[in-house]
Amino acid sequence: MHKVILDTDPGVDDAMALLFLHRHPAIDLVGITTVFGNASIETTTRNALFLKRSWNTAAPVARGIGETLNPERTHVGWPTGIHGEDGLGNIDVPAEIDLPLDPRPAHRFIIETVRANPGEVTLVAVGRMTNLARALRDDPEIAALVKAVVIMGGAFDVPGNITPAAEANIHGDPEAADVVMTAPWPVTVIGLDVTMKTVMTRAALADIAARGGAPARLLADISQFYVTFYEQHVDDGMVVHDSCACAYVVAPELFTTRGGAIRVLCGGIADGQTIQKPDGRIFPPNAWDGLPSQKACTDIDAEAVLKLICETLADGD
Amino acid sequence: MHKVILDTDPGVDDAMALLFLHRHPAIDLVGITTVFGNASIETTTRNALFLKRSWNTAAPVARGIGETLNPERTHVGWPTGIHGEDGLGNIDVPAEIDLPLDPRPAHRFIIETVRANPGEVTLVAVGRMTNLARALRDDPEIAALVKAVVIMGGAFDVPGNITPAAEANIHGDPEAADVVMTAPWPVTVIGLDVTMKTVMTRAALADIAARGGAPARLLADISQFYVTFYEQHVDDGMVVHDSCACAYVVAPELFTTRGGAIRVLCGGIADGQTIQKPDGRIFPPNAWDGLPSQKACTDIDAEAVLKLICETLADGD
Repeated sequence: MHKVILDTDPGVDDAMALLFLHRHPAIDLVGITTVFGNASIETTTRNALFLKRSWNTAAPVARGIGETLNPERTHVGWPTGIHGEDGLGNIDVPAEIDLPLDPRPAHRFIIETVRANPGEVTLVAVGRMTNLARALRDDPEIAALVKAVVIMGGAFDVPGNITPAAEANIHGDPEAADVVMTAPWPVTVIGLDVTMKTVMTRAALADIAARGGAPARLLADISQFYVTFYEQHVDDGMVVHDSCACAYVVAPELFTTRGGAIRVLCGGIADGQTIQKPDGRIFPPNAWDGLPSQKACTDIDAEAVLKLICETLADGD
Repeated sequence: MHKVILDTDPGVDDAMALLFLHRHPAIDLVGITTVFGNASIETTTRNALFLKRSWNTAAPVARGIGETLNPERTHVGWPTGIHGEDGLGNIDVPAEIDLPLDPRPAHRFIIETVRANPGEVTLVAVGRMTNLARALRDDPEIAALVKAVVIMGGAFDVPGNITPAAEANIHGDPEAADVVMTAPWPVTVIGLDVTMKTVMTRAALADIAARGGAPARLLADISQFYVTFYEQHVDDGMVVHDSCACAYVVAPELFTTRGGAIRVLCGGIADGQTIQKPDGRIFPPNAWDGLPSQKACTDIDAEAVLKLICETLADGD
């Protein structure tokens, strides 16, 4: 069993990732921490509670702080055209969800859960890296106590999506992402290099809804708005960015990774770009030297990953 | 016939590019302009004159100015470990060459040659972009009068060589490169994505020397030091960076290109990185918007390009 904390900003593809973790038999979801990005921290936290209630998820929800690691970064609005005004595809999520939050802020929840389960917790971070960076800043020793960090974010050998250089999760808090990528814990980064190849068709989504009961039908309802947005980028269906990171936890053999130190650009026209120095390549002295080698995903068995995701989502409780 | 000005910093692979242009029957080499990079401007200009005299090249040599477009950039030393103390593989180039320089500085030579041959001149730039940027700054109208600009430089979907992000020619004067890439003239960028695939073996170099007379023997002598340096990067031989750009002029069908606006990062840990916004991809407003679509080379028929280069170099006057 993999003990997992999902750090998330639901978010349509976040909802799918959460249902995947909830339903996969090898996953023990021990916490949900919220971050802003696909919507405000108020909205993503409300959405996490809504999904927890809808799906009867046991894991507690801990709310993150609603600002970037560098608080002077300017905010540029939420991507309502992708995730809807409510962050979940405009399905009229109730304004308030009558469920308690964990009393701790997200980064404290992460620290204490990791310390209570040394060497056992995998952090799956599918939003901005804000909470993970705050956790490291408050308690750098957790780096040695985390089992693994799996990130959905970044773009290495392909263009970004929020700019030609940068992917949205990393672009949303580059300073935090640079802290997370360069810390001495084992990070695997699942970026656009592989997620853009992983497209769930409308037919597959309908099949999940037909087979997977009320939770899967809710997921399909949530996803329609996002599928429509993605018509400008893919032929048919939705790119399952966040679920790829979850699939990696249980089936890393379906991914090809490249080792090497990773830095995140902070500022300038390529703000938020992820750049790896591949292990074994020789360069003059540079800003990647001496940093831990992390894994960047460069390829994926998309068909097998989609099958894994579909079967897991359709498999009722 | 292609009227070509070679903007160059000889430099070992520059010497090969010069001999290629000198010997290819479809090239009319109308000028050689020098830039610093592989060595100081004094050394590269001396080397250009040395090669002109050795190979009896008709084209005049015009000397560039020895500082970056932004003169406040700090200088970090010459790559003597790659090109030798003399810039030509430590073959004991004479200290002075008794040949006249063109009286104009390189950028003025470019401007006046372009204006004298409107629509006919191809600029092949295989060093830093300093001279081309100065020419554009002095006389922006030449952009519409140049037939084509072919650059050896940059790294798009692969790591750099001087840092994990940047290729050396572009890194050496990023502000100049950004001016050149974003100007309204047709630019094709031949970067590490393709040049690193184009490795001339020791055996091929020896064959050229055996068949190509004294000029080819001199080229082979110049190249030995560089071949030794490249042992840490390739199995056998030399990467023919600069000659790839020359081959593109006469055989563009051997290259795969991708259209899109190109920017160069100036400053920060990825200083000098080249980033393209591929045409047809949709992004929120960004720093690539409204700029001309240029061509980045993404693949090459390396075997055919090497054959073209070898046959041209071995074909005596």
